[in-house]
Amino acid sequence: MSEFELNRRGLIGASVLGAAMVGLASCDNKGTLAPGVSKADFAGAIKAMRSVVGDEWVFGDPEAVMPWGKVYVPDPNGRHVPLGAVCPRTVEEVQEIVRIANKYKQPIWPISTGKNMGYGMAAPATPGQIVLDLKRMNRILEVDADLGTCLIEPGVTYQQLKDYLDDNNIPLWIDVPTVGPIASPVGNTLDRGVGYTPYGEHFTFQCGMEVVLPNAEILRTGMGSIEGSTAWQAFKWGYGPYVDGLFTQSNFGIVTKMGMWLMPRPPVYKPFMIRHDNMADVPKIIEAMRPLRVSSLVANCNLMMSASYQLAMFKRRNEIVPDGQPLDDASVKKAAKANGLGMWNTYFALYGTEQTVAAIEPIIRAQLTASGGEVLTAAEMGDNPWFHHHATLMEGGLNLDEIGLLRWRGAGGGLAWFAPVAAAKGAEAEGQTKLAREILDKHGFDYTAAYAIGWRDLHHIIALLYDKSDPEQEKKADACYQDLVTTFGKKGWASYRTGVNSMELVAQQYGQTNRDFNKLLKNAIDPNGVIAPGKSGIA
Amino acid sequence: MSEFELNRRGLIGASVLGAAMVGLASCDNKGTLAPGVSKADFAGAIKAMRSVVGDEWVFGDPEAVMPWGKVYVPDPNGRHVPLGAVCPRTVEEVQEIVRIANKYKQPIWPISTGKNMGYGMAAPATPGQIVLDLKRMNRILEVDADLGTCLIEPGVTYQQLKDYLDDNNIPLWIDVPTVGPIASPVGNTLDRGVGYTPYGEHFTFQCGMEVVLPNAEILRTGMGSIEGSTAWQAFKWGYGPYVDGLFTQSNFGIVTKMGMWLMPRPPVYKPFMIRHDNMADVPKIIEAMRPLRVSSLVANCNLMMSASYQLAMFKRRNEIVPDGQPLDDASVKKAAKANGLGMWNTYFALYGTEQTVAAIEPIIRAQLTASGGEVLTAAEMGDNPWFHHHATLMEGGLNLDEIGLLRWRGAGGGLAWFAPVAAAKGAEAEGQTKLAREILDKHGFDYTAAYAIGWRDLHHIIALLYDKSDPEQEKKADACYQDLVTTFGKKGWASYRTGVNSMELVAQQYGQTNRDFNKLLKNAIDPNGVIAPGKSGIA
Repeated sequence: MSEFELNRRGLIGASVLGAAMVGLASCDNKGTLAPGVSKADFAGAIKAMRSVVGDEWVFGDPEAVMPWGKVYVPDPNGRHVPLGAVCPRTVEEVQEIVRIANKYKQPIWPISTGKNMGYGMAAPATPGQIVLDLKRMNRILEVDADLGTCLIEPGVTYQQLKDYLDDNNIPLWIDVPTVGPIASPVGNTLDRGVGYTPYGEHFTFQCGMEVVLPNAEILRTGMGSIEGSTAWQAFKWGYGPYVDGLFTQSNFGIVTKMGMWLMPRPPVYKPFMIRHDNMADVPKIIEAMRPLRVSSLVANCNLMMSASYQLAMFKRRNEIVPDGQPLDDASVKKAAKANGLGMWNTYFALYGTEQTVAAIEPIIRAQLTASGGEVLTAAEMGDNPWFHHHATLMEGGLNLDEIGLLRWRGAGGGLAWFAPVAAAKGAEAEGQTKLAREILDKHGFDYTAAYAIGWRDLHHIIALLYDKSDPEQEKKADACYQDLVTTFGKKGWASYRTGVNSMELVAQQYGQTNRDFNKLLKNAIDPNGVIAPGKSGIA
Repeated sequence: MSEFELNRRGLIGASVLGAAMVGLASCDNKGTLAPGVSKADFAGAIKAMRSVVGDEWVFGDPEAVMPWGKVYVPDPNGRHVPLGAVCPRTVEEVQEIVRIANKYKQPIWPISTGKNMGYGMAAPATPGQIVLDLKRMNRILEVDADLGTCLIEPGVTYQQLKDYLDDNNIPLWIDVPTVGPIASPVGNTLDRGVGYTPYGEHFTFQCGMEVVLPNAEILRTGMGSIEGSTAWQAFKWGYGPYVDGLFTQSNFGIVTKMGMWLMPRPPVYKPFMIRHDNMADVPKIIEAMRPLRVSSLVANCNLMMSASYQLAMFKRRNEIVPDGQPLDDASVKKAAKANGLGMWNTYFALYGTEQTVAAIEPIIRAQLTASGGEVLTAAEMGDNPWFHHHATLMEGGLNLDEIGLLRWRGAGGGLAWFAPVAAAKGAEAEGQTKLAREILDKHGFDYTAAYAIGWRDLHHIIALLYDKSDPEQEKKADACYQDLVTTFGKKGWASYRTGVNSMELVAQQYGQTNRDFNKLLKNAIDPNGVIAPGKSGIA
């Protein structure tokens, strides 16, 4: 685990230490400016921002902004390196920065903690932007232990929230995405990320927002605008059009506070792993899981993991096959078996009392055994690291295991998630797996993938892993990613979320009417286009 | 039940028969025109609409449009009587009508089936509008029995959908609001109505929309714009900003298709009633129910019914107290007791297998008995009509029992729902009940109310019942309603939904920033302001 530790520290260090060390550098920046912004405008914006947040929290030269430009997605032309970064501490400072951005027409790219590995981290979609890094706004403003709700700022991490609950003996769980310790609930929810517990559809469990609009006014959604309301975090919809969705995967405002629902800790938690031995078992597994999910007998967001994805978390590729050789099923199967894994391993859990868990377990056992799976629990899997990984996540626990993916093809760590959606049907998943393998194989990459089985949908989560230290491989990864998006799109399979490298491409797939409507909203809400141009393909 | 039958037929007849009888009348209308619309514009719009949908489906004279102007909410000045009505059958006809509306700047007020009793039925918020009645667009376009999803048009009723499921032996339930048989799932969901099963938060279970925008283009939300997608009804969010919420409680477009999730029929369904004997038990009940709801041990949307509300469904007021006398607690208690009811009767159900229900039942029994309630089931309540009413609704069954409310104070049936939100806390509910009783009492009306106990919130649903055939009483009801909204608002309690009579008033409570933002969106999306001006206070 020592390499692993190193990698972890490297990752965190990149943004935190880097920023602190070179905080007072000048704003002499050789990068591309945003369209219509002059060098003087940019310099003016940087100067004005310094007067708002202090010199030490504004970064305007290439070396200083480097941490915010680090991406794992393919970026062969360096399009995603920002021009600057600014770190406000209060909502008033955010308002001032938005006013400055409008004055100089200088685009700003808001991030929460910017740990969106495989989707672009802190980096903007288009050149010339200043990253608005909200990590210093990290207050937990309220936790209501009775209602199971909280109100937090964007810089709060999952780790911080969990520590707060633990320290105060509040029997509520959080629901984490991968790399939860360093990631932000606000950032993940606004990207509509998913987790592992019954509260895994993060946007569903969001309740109330405070948003700094592009005109610098503060909008509170839901019940948040009612003076004296105690229901801001209790009731999602408010009155009139429900607008919270507008501020997810978009660039219509800057979320400075967000309410969330937290799951009460159940008396009993029992994690399961279903082991299937063959790659071809995909449709059987989906067909067996769907009724359990639709009926809520299995209430959490399941992860159906391919062995190759799992191996990539804790192994290097050349431990499985020699460098340069395709990752063949036989080799994967052998390595999987040696580690207690099948070719597909599906993780879910039961939550309840001894009695309710005992009542449901026989039903799921019968259903999944009939699908050809082995039903395994802690009794059989013991401290198997992969079982431990999911068992931790499914009770809202934290780990950084997935950072290991970056080491699969060497220290140069490249990762881009491709995440096409499908209805939860066996034939859909079978078709997607087949197509993904064909495309990845053609470009010389591995099928390291999982399915997140939602209530009625699948997120097929494909990790495109490559060595970013090899410029040729980065170009190939870029081409492969575009091929995946385009070819899947033609089959009717589009992404639920994508990295800064592919936002425009995916937006095109959702059609012109959709784009026109988003653009209409953008022009009305942000006429100067200063908030995150290019986010989700909205300029 | 015969009076009841009569009333039911009266209600349905009002819109269906009325419309058919006078379909060919002229467009000579003496009503108020919309601002900026001349008599010639209106006539031009009516004429053009006739050329689109046929003469027999356009109504332009006062007598012909009467059915669409019938409201139960107070409307002492007749502000909510529309100028016309048009009933298209296809989305292309809707597009044409929208183009006509833009050409003549003639506002149109879209309704699904317009059976929104107590919130305004088919009637527009402001004068001069033509009702766009979508009842003829009533196709069930798809039901996916495996995924538990459907795609329907706005004119489909809950009855129609239930019949379709029954006729085709599809083991899926619907979730109904009151007066489900004649109401529309699309209309109710767009108003963010709630029902009685675990799928009771209707908007949560909506998935995918087709919307005719004010520019007559067709927007498909979520995955609906992806050619060949099978996930339109499986995955809610799509990519980029989630915009479905914009088309709820608003006037930004006309929803012509909507996807919904349907709950799989559970093997076992067991309804409960918890009987509490005193008005003052309010906080105890909420405090006891909240943990059951937050933990999802009780998974459905509970109704905590006051005895007076329940009596008003099946009795006339003068069966309880003589006309003119206040409805005192002692008289209510006596009548309640005679009918097997306490002063508060809380209905919920368990859904699952024999084993899961048996596992949960002791927990809820212990919790609710400790709150001073009697835990009752079908074994004790038998065919008690109130128990039967809720037992039917909580399994997605249909009835029109609540139409009985209109008879409480005589045949003149007046009803306005006042529905302030609160966090699910005993003290909040106690305060709301106290305040509501004071205000209603001051104006001479009864506290006939319930709490819908959501996941973490309360909808306090207060039926303001009055005799609409008495103009003085209608004026008093109007004043009382405004007092309720205003006084509750000052305490931080605002409505989750309101009738056409009070949309402006409630919108004011949500504050100027909220209003400005909605207006910004309105101006961008509907620059001529032709879709439903006044809806949710957005002009």
